[in-house]
Amino acid sequence: MIEYEHASPEVRAVYDDIRSTRRTDFINNFWKALANDPKTLARTWQATKQIMAAGTLDPLTKEFVYLAVSVTNNCDYCLHSHTASAVTKGMTASMFGELMAVVALANANNRLANGYGVEVDERFRAPFGR
Amino acid sequence: MIEYEHASPEVRAVYDDIRSTRRTDFINNFWKALANDPKTLARTWQATKQIMAAGTLDPLTKEFVYLAVSVTNNCDYCLHSHTASAVTKGMTASMFGELMAVVALANANNRLANGYGVEVDERFRAPFGR
Amino acid sequence: MIEYEHASPEVRAVYDDIRSTRRTDFINNFWKALANDPKTLARTWQATKQIMAAGTLDPLTKEFVYLAVSVTNNCDYCLHSHTASAVTKGMTASMFGELMAVVALANANNRLANGYGVEVDERFRAPFGR
Amino acid sequence: MIEYEHASPEVRAVYDDIRSTRRTDFINNFWKALANDPKTLARTWQATKQIMAAGTLDPLTKEFVYLAVSVTNNCDYCLHSHTASAVTKGMTASMFGELMAVVALANANNRLANGYGVEVDERFRAPFGR
Amino acid sequence: MIEYEHASPEVRAVYDDIRSTRRTDFINNFWKALANDPKTLARTWQATKQIMAAGTLDPLTKEFVYLAVSVTNNCDYCLHSHTASAVTKGMTASMFGELMAVVALANANNRLANGYGVEVDERFRAPFGR
Amino acid sequence: MIEYEHASPEVRAVYDDIRSTRRTDFINNFWKALANDPKTLARTWQATKQIMAAGTLDPLTKEFVYLAVSVTNNCDYCLHSHTASAVTKGMTASMFGELMAVVALANANNRLANGYGVEVDERFRAPFGR
Repeated sequence: MIEYEHASPEVRAVYDDIRSTRRTDFINNFWKALANDPKTLARTWQATKQIMAAGTLDPLTKEFVYLAVSVTNNCDYCLHSHTASAVTKGMTASMFGELMAVVALANANNRLANGYGVEVDERFRAPFGR
Repeated sequence: MIEYEHASPEVRAVYDDIRSTRRTDFINNFWKALANDPKTLARTWQATKQIMAAGTLDPLTKEFVYLAVSVTNNCDYCLHSHTASAVTKGMTASMFGELMAVVALANANNRLANGYGVEVDERFRAPFGR
Repeated sequence: MIEYEHASPEVRAVYDDIRSTRRTDFINNFWKALANDPKTLARTWQATKQIMAAGTLDPLTKEFVYLAVSVTNNCDYCLHSHTASAVTKGMTASMFGELMAVVALANANNRLANGYGVEVDERFRAPFGR
Repeated sequence: MIEYEHASPEVRAVYDDIRSTRRTDFINNFWKALANDPKTLARTWQATKQIMAAGTLDPLTKEFVYLAVSVTNNCDYCLHSHTASAVTKGMTASMFGELMAVVALANANNRLANGYGVEVDERFRAPFGR
Repeated sequence: MIEYEHASPEVRAVYDDIRSTRRTDFINNFWKALANDPKTLARTWQATKQIMAAGTLDPLTKEFVYLAVSVTNNCDYCLHSHTASAVTKGMTASMFGELMAVVALANANNRLANGYGVEVDERFRAPFGR
Repeated sequence: MIEYEHASPEVRAVYDDIRSTRRTDFINNFWKALANDPKTLARTWQATKQIMAAGTLDPLTKEFVYLAVSVTNNCDYCLHSHTASAVTKGMTASMFGELMAVVALANANNRLANGYGVEVDERFRAPFGR
């Protein structure tokens, strides 16, 4: 893990941007680990900053989606860091409970659809060209 | 696939509830396939109806989460049926694009966190007792 | 896909063993595809033959387990070939329905356990040295 | 984690049913964590109780299937709790060994089938309408 | 799918870069689909171009890694596009066979390690700080 | 975990082969855990020895592929043991960084392809008969 003091100028520039974007001095371990590969650090931070910002979806909705993927993939680090992040953006215990319920339901129903080999209904074809 | 006309009273009761809950006559293939196992049909419909309804998370947010899981698990049927469902609840093409971007980002970052074996930061421990 | 007529002696030996073990002339596509890499064909057939045979678990139970994994991984070919195989060994539609219900439940509960970060109970430690 | 003493009547009712169904005073951590969301606790317990009971598949076979999914998804908690559960229902070390062998084989062969893009054989189509 | 003729200047710029980088006029469907979300198109192309280029790993090795992930995740499109790509860079049928064998082995052994709950050996700790 | 001193002749024979093949006295925990099921131990070692040896792909390339699968599946043990193994065969920190970047990219792009339901391009059909 690369601390700010021992970081190259290239890495420091990313750390500085993380700090000013998030208005905090705290750099979490994910970035300190990625700093071993400065190109991946810079690219991953740019992508994360761009994608997780407000757009047509608000930042909290994006955190829910991120958490849903992380729980499904069983990524313990991501679960902890994005739970913290979602709480900062307004997630309550009750919202977390509903989120987990949807994630569990989708994981179950995905397998029922696969296992029974359900064919896509004609009227479900098409939106967004698919 | 069990059509309404050939369904047992037990299965018909579920189909009737799907129709009245969704205000449509349409029963999609997922339920017609599950009807081969009436207990699973009834249990899955009850769970889906309860979980996907408005709560502290609104129904569209729940569809985003459901889609995120289905894309990650590569469930083609679920992707189609819940894209249709999300569109009904207000998802635009631009929202779908942002959703996919978050799903892709989370799937990438999950692997970076796993691969680098990033340790959970002390301050990320605790919310909701974990 | 390598047909028997165009197969090398090495591949034919495996096909012959598949036929005599299964008491059928039919060679399914999986083996014909693997025949492009004769070492993988031979090794995979040997492993499959040894593992799927009766042991302390009976062959039908093994098919249920194989199907559970294939549904979870969404492997369409495996789902079809091992459903056929399980039917030959006695799986009924009702058994298939219960199997799918367990697979869906486990996929859901796996995510609830992960998402809530549930700690392993002291008394669950130990069996088989873990 | 919600202990019995601090649980609401709604949660206590589920705990009481777990205790009487399993003939034990022990409530494992999974349920104590879910108790933070009483609806999910009740729904998950009802589903688990119904699905894991004896049907056309016996309870031990269902535990094997549950374990196969949990190993494939890498759910450590589920692996421990359902190994304990399976041992109670008669799983021996030798059965566990065979179970793991089938799980590993299926995970390997799933990828060979996907990677080679094997087409489903005509005669594997059809059982249970697929 | 957005064709070059109907693409916005922003999308055309990406298509032009794909064409000149790959020395071909051909734009494959992946990019035409992403063009519905120009930001994701640009970001994904930049990342792909940077990551898949020669570095301390050569481009063919990177294609093997990409294929290994795509087979494990069962992404049919990715499997086809990156098989084509790997063939262009020198992958032979024999290399593909060995690649699939490693992918299958790793997927099997991953589950044996998880299922037996194997503890990490002391001497395996440490490389790259983990 | 079965130590050499307490191992049956069948298990010892495998341990001896591991030692002589790898020119070390060290037997890592994976094999000691599998030794509880001697058939799986022998079969898994034979497969691993055969598949991971030099062929048309060199051993280091095979370790990269193995690691890519293990990171994607989140197998902590496999990640540690094969990182150690890859380092022995020449993997540098820079190679590891590039490897992780490709793994993350593929996991992201797999979901973009799935989520947008991208159709396979005509010219990507065919290599190796698919």
